[in-house]
Amino acid sequence: MGSNVLLLHVMKNVLPDRIRTAEEIGHLTVITEPGHVQQYGPDVDVHTVPSVQNLEVMRAKVLEILRERRIDRIFAPFELGQSAAGYLRSYFGLPGTGLDVANNFSNKYVMKQRFAAGGLPVTGFRLVAGLHQVPEAAAHLGWPLVIKPMIGGGSINVSVIHGPEHFEEFCRTPAAERVRALPVPLLAERFVEMSAEYHFDAIVENGQVLFSVGSRYTSPVLTRDGFLGSCILPPDDPTRQRMTEMHAQAVSSLGLDSGVTHMEFFETSDGLIAGEIACRPAGGLFPESIRMHTGADLWRACLELALGLSPKLELKDEEGVLAHCHLPISPGRIVEQTTEEELAALPSVVRVDMLRRKGDVVPAHLNSASASAVVYVRADRPEEAEAAIRRVVEEYRIDIVPEEV
Amino acid sequence: MGSNVLLLHVMKNVLPDRIRTAEEIGHLTVITEPGHVQQYGPDVDVHTVPSVQNLEVMRAKVLEILRERRIDRIFAPFELGQSAAGYLRSYFGLPGTGLDVANNFSNKYVMKQRFAAGGLPVTGFRLVAGLHQVPEAAAHLGWPLVIKPMIGGGSINVSVIHGPEHFEEFCRTPAAERVRALPVPLLAERFVEMSAEYHFDAIVENGQVLFSVGSRYTSPVLTRDGFLGSCILPPDDPTRQRMTEMHAQAVSSLGLDSGVTHMEFFETSDGLIAGEIACRPAGGLFPESIRMHTGADLWRACLELALGLSPKLELKDEEGVLAHCHLPISPGRIVEQTTEEELAALPSVVRVDMLRRKGDVVPAHLNSASASAVVYVRADRPEEAEAAIRRVVEEYRIDIVPEEV
Repeated sequence: MGSNVLLLHVMKNVLPDRIRTAEEIGHLTVITEPGHVQQYGPDVDVHTVPSVQNLEVMRAKVLEILRERRIDRIFAPFELGQSAAGYLRSYFGLPGTGLDVANNFSNKYVMKQRFAAGGLPVTGFRLVAGLHQVPEAAAHLGWPLVIKPMIGGGSINVSVIHGPEHFEEFCRTPAAERVRALPVPLLAERFVEMSAEYHFDAIVENGQVLFSVGSRYTSPVLTRDGFLGSCILPPDDPTRQRMTEMHAQAVSSLGLDSGVTHMEFFETSDGLIAGEIACRPAGGLFPESIRMHTGADLWRACLELALGLSPKLELKDEEGVLAHCHLPISPGRIVEQTTEEELAALPSVVRVDMLRRKGDVVPAHLNSASASAVVYVRADRPEEAEAAIRRVVEEYRIDIVPEEV
Repeated sequence: MGSNVLLLHVMKNVLPDRIRTAEEIGHLTVITEPGHVQQYGPDVDVHTVPSVQNLEVMRAKVLEILRERRIDRIFAPFELGQSAAGYLRSYFGLPGTGLDVANNFSNKYVMKQRFAAGGLPVTGFRLVAGLHQVPEAAAHLGWPLVIKPMIGGGSINVSVIHGPEHFEEFCRTPAAERVRALPVPLLAERFVEMSAEYHFDAIVENGQVLFSVGSRYTSPVLTRDGFLGSCILPPDDPTRQRMTEMHAQAVSSLGLDSGVTHMEFFETSDGLIAGEIACRPAGGLFPESIRMHTGADLWRACLELALGLSPKLELKDEEGVLAHCHLPISPGRIVEQTTEEELAALPSVVRVDMLRRKGDVVPAHLNSASASAVVYVRADRPEEAEAAIRRVVEEYRIDIVPEEV
């Protein structure tokens, strides 16, 4: 018999269908936000609240649900719902990640405090309750600074401030107005030049890392142009090995018992430093690339661990390296596009997922992992795979014209 | 230099003056509730919110305060403010007890879950989201049941339900209406007959019990008549020793790092069972009795631990036993009262604190530890001290007449 599961959804996020309909879920109740992108079946109780981040509203809603039906587990695979999920588990005595650990993974200030306390190398940081405290932070940390909401997803409201004059200018911009209106404090971090960016993805059960894989992102230049992807590094790669150690320390410092993690690392002139960590699968088709190369299904593991089950891993040996790249998309009608066959014929390409095709109309609201297609390449060494990805990027053509509304 | 301290107060609670004005507090900011009983000096920033238990309101208020002034520590010695204090520490990355541990101490369901998981004997219990789920709880636990708010102070909205017919009757009472209106779930507990009640008071630092003392309450009959008190048991008393072990297990099960604890125990036909534990000094003049007998100042220790300081304990050897009793009070004008001299002349009495005197007008709202006087007696053995307390109870006369408003 499956469990009664409460899924905390976030408006823009979408759960893979095979996870939403997994047989381990006996009865599904959802709390989500108005305008939610995800659709649910007829057997699902769907409740909406203005924001799943409002703890008082969520507590009242869950009490209302509990008066009708037992809840066994809360499943919250999306970052902005995880703090509330932790609070609700703590408050209602439900098993799984409680508020403090969930907060460690979603609150960037507390995360950095714990990383630093655990001896992980991090950039200098400081809590800044309001924009007017940025100069004081700069006096401690030095310019340039990155300022970002202490809690928030992606790159929304993240700004780089180069120095005092730039700060004065910034304070007069609409971006500063948006920052002033935030209901959360800011985190100020010393901006550091990075020569490469990495991500590390793992499955943790009872505090032990069951599975992990380290990858190097496509270059920032490609990412900026919408070609987001990465290359899984070989197991003996020194950076992957260093990430393995640092990730284990991070998991221990944040007190995670069980969950799927996605952590960022940066190569700097001072060596590898720890970026942020999230307790969820990577976005976009990154998990699919990891599944192809290693057999590990991060999404299934995420569900299983949330339900208190041991992940059923069917791992296979990694052969060479696999790189993938999300190909860009923008709102409008696709009038021309390199075909699936043309992409598949490029060197080292082993798979092409066409997500949009010529004639499709792409809606206005896209998140950072949206793509027109995803291409996977396999090679012996990362440098070869990355060269093959650059070739795909050079060859890919997509023409999108604005659509009359 | 003292710390910037944020004190979370609760409307009816009052902090001892020597704690409120302690030199360790550099600057004091208070968040309290409208109609607060405590008065503060001119240098104190006082903010009010409708309820200090509302996490979203508290978070916004603290962010507003942080935009003006750094906060080093949050001091929350009153039970109803502790969960919010824990949340605020977790959220703003402040040191001290975080949300999960604070919740373990204020959420009676989670407390019992953790006690049971740690092997402590507790009465059978079950979460009941609404009154209509009480029969289902009774099917698991058996009648009679105690039902109480999962979070709440003292005996407010606590009811004993003897069986199914009584439950039907209860559902038609105003008390049931109040329970239905509660914004929190209920805890149902198997009602057990108890032959004696005890309390155990301790100072915990870095997970270690620095100081502890175990006491037996005055009989339930005396307590019901307003004579609330207890007798500190000798260090070699078997029940005190058993409480010492069980309290250490409780502190470990709830994950307390540092704080002052006050725990209840009950003697039943199945032996000593763990009642509730709070992370604060005992109410009323119980801490004064403990200070007199042992030298331990629970209130100072509570402040010091909240500020991250090691408690400065000046312990002395316990001589015999000390019992104390709060003498009753009720609203109105005191027209007759046994005098301080008469009380002091009774056998074994070593101290009398007159809190109200003939002619005083007592206001309407009183909490459970209100008293007209407190009498302390010293003896060699608990039975002698308890007999001396009964003598005080028999001799004490107070006549209170309703006051015209």
